[in-house]
Amino acid sequence: MTQYQKHCALPGRLVMVGFGSIGQGVLPLILRHIEIDRQNITIITADERGHGEADYFGIKFVKEPLTRQNYRAMLEPLLSKGDFLLNLSVDVSSTALVELCAERGALYLDTCIEPWPGGYTDPNLSPSMRSNYALREQALDLRGKLGTNAPTAVLTHGANPGLVSHFVKQALLNIAEDTGRDVTEVPAGREAWAKLAHDLGVKVIHIAERDTQVSSIPKKRGEFVNTWSIDGFISEGCQPAELGWGTHEATFPPDGIRHDFGCQAGIILNRPGVTQRVRTWTPMEGPFHGFLITHSEALSIPDYLTVRDADGKAIYRPTCHYAYHPCDDAVKSIHEFAGKNFVQQETQRLLMKEIIDGVDELGVLLAGHEKGAYWFGSQLTCSEARQLVEFNSATSLQVTVAALSGMIWAIENPDRGIVEADDMDFQRCLDICMPYLGPVVGAYTDWTPLDGRNKLFVEDVDTSDPWQFKNIRVV
Amino acid sequence: MTQYQKHCALPGRLVMVGFGSIGQGVLPLILRHIEIDRQNITIITADERGHGEADYFGIKFVKEPLTRQNYRAMLEPLLSKGDFLLNLSVDVSSTALVELCAERGALYLDTCIEPWPGGYTDPNLSPSMRSNYALREQALDLRGKLGTNAPTAVLTHGANPGLVSHFVKQALLNIAEDTGRDVTEVPAGREAWAKLAHDLGVKVIHIAERDTQVSSIPKKRGEFVNTWSIDGFISEGCQPAELGWGTHEATFPPDGIRHDFGCQAGIILNRPGVTQRVRTWTPMEGPFHGFLITHSEALSIPDYLTVRDADGKAIYRPTCHYAYHPCDDAVKSIHEFAGKNFVQQETQRLLMKEIIDGVDELGVLLAGHEKGAYWFGSQLTCSEARQLVEFNSATSLQVTVAALSGMIWAIENPDRGIVEADDMDFQRCLDICMPYLGPVVGAYTDWTPLDGRNKLFVEDVDTSDPWQFKNIRVV
Ligand SMILES: NC(=O)c1ccc[n+]([C@@H]2O[C@H](COP(=O)([O-])OP(=O)(O)OC[C@H]3O[C@@H](n4cnc5c(N)ncnc54)[C@H](O)[C@@H]3O)[C@@H](O)[C@H]2O)c1
Ligand SMILES: NC(=O)c1ccc[n+]([C@@H]2O[C@H](COP(=O)([O-])OP(=O)(O)OC[C@H]3O[C@@H](n4cnc5c(N)ncnc54)[C@H](O)[C@@H]3O)[C@@H](O)[C@H]2O)c1
Repeated sequence: MTQYQKHCALPGRLVMVGFGSIGQGVLPLILRHIEIDRQNITIITADERGHGEADYFGIKFVKEPLTRQNYRAMLEPLLSKGDFLLNLSVDVSSTALVELCAERGALYLDTCIEPWPGGYTDPNLSPSMRSNYALREQALDLRGKLGTNAPTAVLTHGANPGLVSHFVKQALLNIAEDTGRDVTEVPAGREAWAKLAHDLGVKVIHIAERDTQVSSIPKKRGEFVNTWSIDGFISEGCQPAELGWGTHEATFPPDGIRHDFGCQAGIILNRPGVTQRVRTWTPMEGPFHGFLITHSEALSIPDYLTVRDADGKAIYRPTCHYAYHPCDDAVKSIHEFAGKNFVQQETQRLLMKEIIDGVDELGVLLAGHEKGAYWFGSQLTCSEARQLVEFNSATSLQVTVAALSGMIWAIENPDRGIVEADDMDFQRCLDICMPYLGPVVGAYTDWTPLDGRNKLFVEDVDTSDPWQFKNIRVV
Repeated sequence: MTQYQKHCALPGRLVMVGFGSIGQGVLPLILRHIEIDRQNITIITADERGHGEADYFGIKFVKEPLTRQNYRAMLEPLLSKGDFLLNLSVDVSSTALVELCAERGALYLDTCIEPWPGGYTDPNLSPSMRSNYALREQALDLRGKLGTNAPTAVLTHGANPGLVSHFVKQALLNIAEDTGRDVTEVPAGREAWAKLAHDLGVKVIHIAERDTQVSSIPKKRGEFVNTWSIDGFISEGCQPAELGWGTHEATFPPDGIRHDFGCQAGIILNRPGVTQRVRTWTPMEGPFHGFLITHSEALSIPDYLTVRDADGKAIYRPTCHYAYHPCDDAVKSIHEFAGKNFVQQETQRLLMKEIIDGVDELGVLLAGHEKGAYWFGSQLTCSEARQLVEFNSATSLQVTVAALSGMIWAIENPDRGIVEADDMDFQRCLDICMPYLGPVVGAYTDWTPLDGRNKLFVEDVDTSDPWQFKNIRVV
């Protein structure tokens, strides 16, 4: 048997809430790399999925959905100082669990800020209040309330959001080095990173992902197929398209909406993310259209990288957003879903064992600097992922190893209060993740969103600056 | 051996130009229903596809692409009075072949007005000149030149364009009957049909098609997959989105373009059809998004149904367009194609034998009348199509039997000059097609493009009339 390095020990208990594709994928990694007694682990989840795996590992499996009403009663007995709550569910309020953990002295990590059911699609809420901007601001408010040395609660630390914030830092360092800057000293703290991004002239950061995984079973009519949470994807896909709004942008989108509260790092568009495509690029795929699905890293990264003048006015911020090409079956699923006016399909299929081929090419594209555009990220094939860790696909492994690294960082730094990936030690997290990401590559490209435009039809483009969102947006 | 009815005899020769999915599918139908000597048939095509089938039926197979330079030399020896030229190719000018046939006294049929190569995507031509409107007007000019009793040349008589024009007439009769009108006398001629459509208050005619055929082999990256000509689909998908423009329309599209010549029945939008989705409905699928791909029936049908006042001013015309949901693999192919700025994928796969399931639900949706909306069309499954006629799928059979019926009508009516489906005997054509269309159904629906709108996001809709194009268009 291979001996894996134990990165740290968790003497307390671990409660896993939710045991879908990410929960199932992370469990073997936790057992492999964190010193923990299996008997101290409890899974609380809403359905039978993964029950066989839990039995296989000898982990307690409780099928009892958490609700606004029962979550305290359910979780309080399982959490006290030194314990860990790993939230990998959908439809359970992240902030509710964070507050509870702070009260109990327990550590916390999730991979998405989730509201209670309906929070994403409550027609009584304005688009602004249904955005990730609002969810993030609520969590940041809580940070203030709980204090900066409350028990560590890591927000949104999967692949994206999560790992990609660390990729951005590594990419900034790589571009700095490749453009002849002195990088012997790694920027210490937010201001220094923002200064570096500003200095490099990075205008745009895409989380550019192309998932090429394919299944042996064709998508059926009335079925939503994806490589990770279908409920999660549909929820965020129905939220407003959302992006961090850069200081270089010359034209405000006609349907753009600013928020009347919070950090002002981002805006939303008056439409669901699943209906908005954007032009982006990855090394294996080349140029493609991704969907502008909202994600909290589209806010945390540009917020982190904002440079302000003495009056607090933002003088530099990159535009930042997700540009997601999900697996082909999900592209079809989205088309069907939009065609039914966003009434969710009756059935869903989360691709796991039936994936027969493909790569999840997930990284960050930093553009507008002197070398054009630079993509940095992971090109993990599904078959490599499976060889590396059982119960995973390429998509899940990028998330689960990032969650693992966040857990380890939290255990090692137990009193940091609420943090986002951007606030954490990127090098430590990357070190833990690297062995599980397949080829991690950096690639420059001279591609811009103006390539091949204005050929057969006159298009309204801004030729003075390729990296205007106006050029990136597909209309 | 089953005895099939011979509908007519062709004593002369038959030249088939192009032997792709439609050519291969129509040959067994021709041999089955037209009295003809196999030795009199010649296939002229550009590649090896179908060679085995030609050999199987003992038909001469010439692989020699027609060009501007060689087409006269190639075809003149094969065509004289009483012969038939069946053009099922791509990239061969329809009008050039029609002129040649008129000179030689031969009959002619095609299923699409094709220009010579590059005609669809010549950036030196304006969008207006790259439209089907322009191609159709050129063909209509030729009609004037050749005279109305030249040898019959049937333009664009496949499923759509073609059969759907006959469906529209049948649907008008059905709605008339169902709304208590006297339909003992079938309208005689264009004016009478237009009057009926006007009287019924039909505002919108969609060619509403949902192809659900799926393949056992997943689409590969860099591959365009479809159930009929990929070159054909890409060509028309890159033409401007195009539609017949109804007299009830209150808002002209911001990117709409009128033509400065011709019949004025249609307009184009300043964008390729593959990037424009529209809301439509079929009985099996329910509501869905189709692509607004240009097709000549989107012009010929509304032109035919136009009612003019004494001054020649159009006082009634329905809006008419294609709303095409190709097979799911084609939806993915389009997404990829658009993402590469309309650079065609390196490989293509025309689904034939690997189709494992699915229906081509193809019909016409007539809406805005007193019973709401009415769909009339064919719901042919692939397995039924294969049982009916070898070398076919659901998609091809709807086209090939329509082409057969057009050939028969031409042989029976040999001196009508250039005609479109709308000018022909719809009953004769339908009678020939019916046994090959699977269930042909009519269905009313109270669906409108306003259903489910304006829920999570404020949308700019015209609630005073659901059947405005503004409501149908997906933006
Ligand atoms: N940051 C990232 O990179 C990333 C990537 C993938 C998924 N995610 C997020 O991780 C979460 C889980 O994703 P997944 O793919 O495993 O989802 P999934 O849909 O496969 O599983 C969701 C799990 O939550 C459970 N659940 C649902 N309601 C519950 C309730 N009320 N109480 C307890 N459990 C409940 C379900 O039973 C299921 O086990 C989602 O929030 C998703 O958005 C983040
Ligand atoms: N009206 C309808 O319902 C309908 C439906 C499907 C296809 N079509 C049209 O029918 C035509 C054929 O469709 P398909 O699916 O069979 O196409 P396909 O791509 O399968 O086949 C095209 C054929 O044309 C041949 N060809 C190409 N260039 C040629 C040349 N220069 N000279 C001679 N032959 C040449 C090819 O070798 C091939 O045999 C297309 O124009 C298409 O748009 C119409």
